[in-house]
Amino acid sequence: MSARVLLPWTDIDVPEGVEAAYYDGVAPPPDGLDGVEFYVLPYDRGAEPPKLIRELPALRVVQSLSAGVEALVPLLPDGVRLANGRGLHDLSVAEHALALIHAAQRDLPRWFAQQTRGEWTREHTRSLADSRVLLVGYGSIGQAIERQLVAAEAAVTRVASRARPESQVHGVDELPRLLPDADIVVLILPDTPSTRGLFDAKTLAALPDDALVVNVGRGTAVDTDALLAETRSGRLRAGLDVVDPEPLPSDHPLWTMPGVVITPHIAGGSASFYPRAKKLAAEQVRRYVAGEELLNLVER
Amino acid sequence: MSARVLLPWTDIDVPEGVEAAYYDGVAPPPDGLDGVEFYVLPYDRGAEPPKLIRELPALRVVQSLSAGVEALVPLLPDGVRLANGRGLHDLSVAEHALALIHAAQRDLPRWFAQQTRGEWTREHTRSLADSRVLLVGYGSIGQAIERQLVAAEAAVTRVASRARPESQVHGVDELPRLLPDADIVVLILPDTPSTRGLFDAKTLAALPDDALVVNVGRGTAVDTDALLAETRSGRLRAGLDVVDPEPLPSDHPLWTMPGVVITPHIAGGSASFYPRAKKLAAEQVRRYVAGEELLNLVER
Ligand SMILES: NC(=O)c1ccc[n+]([C@@H]2O[C@H](COP(=O)([O-])OP(=O)(O)OC[C@H]3O[C@@H](n4cnc5c(N)ncnc54)[C@H](OP(=O)(O)O)[C@@H]3O)[C@@H](O)[C@H]2O)c1
Ligand SMILES: NC(=O)c1ccc[n+]([C@@H]2O[C@H](COP(=O)([O-])OP(=O)(O)OC[C@H]3O[C@@H](n4cnc5c(N)ncnc54)[C@H](OP(=O)(O)O)[C@@H]3O)[C@@H](O)[C@H]2O)c1
Repeated sequence: MSARVLLPWTDIDVPEGVEAAYYDGVAPPPDGLDGVEFYVLPYDRGAEPPKLIRELPALRVVQSLSAGVEALVPLLPDGVRLANGRGLHDLSVAEHALALIHAAQRDLPRWFAQQTRGEWTREHTRSLADSRVLLVGYGSIGQAIERQLVAAEAAVTRVASRARPESQVHGVDELPRLLPDADIVVLILPDTPSTRGLFDAKTLAALPDDALVVNVGRGTAVDTDALLAETRSGRLRAGLDVVDPEPLPSDHPLWTMPGVVITPHIAGGSASFYPRAKKLAAEQVRRYVAGEELLNLVER
Repeated sequence: MSARVLLPWTDIDVPEGVEAAYYDGVAPPPDGLDGVEFYVLPYDRGAEPPKLIRELPALRVVQSLSAGVEALVPLLPDGVRLANGRGLHDLSVAEHALALIHAAQRDLPRWFAQQTRGEWTREHTRSLADSRVLLVGYGSIGQAIERQLVAAEAAVTRVASRARPESQVHGVDELPRLLPDADIVVLILPDTPSTRGLFDAKTLAALPDDALVVNVGRGTAVDTDALLAETRSGRLRAGLDVVDPEPLPSDHPLWTMPGVVITPHIAGGSASFYPRAKKLAAEQVRRYVAGEELLNLVER
């Protein structure tokens, strides 16, 4: 009997009687995948795992463990449904956004550099408390970021694609009015035609001097050249987990701009992601086998 | 007419008719201080400002802007009251505790080192979410730290000097039972005989492998040699804003221990401290002049 489900980890609970095969996205895929109807993609393993989608003749469902699945849509054969990992990364990405903000506000790169020299030189820093934070993207992750910002007593202003005055959410068209009052702007947006280049030279120019631009969504939301110009002059600062292009070439000038901290797109994949991802995968397989409605289906 | 109040900043509102003089703790003190009854000590300016206490013949009140005032008590002439800066630093210290935790859990020193080399190498990290945090010290600052930990969905266990079961606070005598279940321990304790050396070799040994020790209170709470041994072996990690001794000598081995991040006692003095400090100073001077009870008086 050939496998009906293909999973990235062996410690996912599958309903009794369901044959599972395992593919971690690193070792080559196993044989005997002709019967696979449900494929849980290995998380964050590059370009190979998605290619397998086209080689599974019985495939009905692809379960991604990522929140952003733009790149998968063109690969799906007709009739194959796609579910995303919405919610799995919320805490991981949110705390990484906070880590980048703290790193920038509290000068962590400076202290760590001093540490390598054994240097005890003290200076007072900026803080997050009392800062006015413009949160651009108020979805699943944005809301988790907000809870942590509020606990730190920052003043948060919410922005999403459309205004929802009843929940104090501003529309993206209000940005020109909101930007001049932001000490920190946090971008947590998907990669779509409407978000690409949203933070271009003109948008960035509307931020006050010394503002911090944090991006943990997709790199394409920020015009890299415009950000380079604003950080080279020292007018703006940045904390970036995502950049455009990725990977950032080793000789790219952004690496060495003053006031810029960069992490290599690792916000989503910290320890707290794994138990949540395994729980979702188990639940989705259970629902599939029981003929119940799936969670997190992506409209196409 | 000589000054009745001596203040560290010129933008503090004093009641009409009250003569103020200014001393920032850096430039020499001004003349004409014989009438000073109320002295607001410059914040974090070293040993000189406290010395002035003995040179003000009319002195009635010393207002410190620090939370920890142990070192001032022996300097006070009889009858001079002391008020501390309890609460002014809560947010600043709390967010710095979070900064140290994020730095350690999310490997920030590694990414910043990679950044200097233009290196985009990715790896998944620990997280704060889901971590079990033992919060040792549940006073003004400890409670602010807790709010930020809870927002990040860490599981917090509270410890103070005495158990208060009605508010889920454990007594320090329960530490031996609590330590083995802590992924992260945060110390936010004053320097007193009972806290000195509380985290000695035996206490540290009770923590599980890979646990993170964060100290933002006073360096004396941790036995530095014991922490050195536990971090040198790679068994424990640490995030320290306070150490023993301070300043940490440039050739001290703690600087270069793996998994140890150090900031030079700067948790309390970030931007959000200043407006709060100025507000407290103004309010206390107002109360003093009006003959009202002062806030934050320290029992001696
Ligand atoms: N760095 C990482 O490792 C990492 C990890 C996971 C996810 N991500 C990225 O984070 C993105 C967001 O994730 P999520 O789970 O929060 O998504 P989500 O729940 O779908 O929320 C997306 C938010 O973006 C807003 N939005 C969309 N287009 C916009 C526009 N043109 N202008 C302003 N706001 C716009 C949406 O507005 P409405 O509320 O009005 O719809 C919504 O509030 C993902 O798509 C993914 O690309 C990054
Ligand atoms: N790193 C910095 O820049 C910085 C800045 C500001 C302050 N600090 C330090 O932080 C300390 C705490 O500030 P705070 O405003 O939170 O003080 P606080 O409100 O007085 O709280 C102190 C807490 O420590 C607990 N405690 C005292 N002795 C203890 C012991 N032996 N074992 C266990 N718990 C004990 C107290 O327990 P009970 O609740 O049972 O009384 C209380 O919960 C200050 O004293 C100062 O030294 C550092």
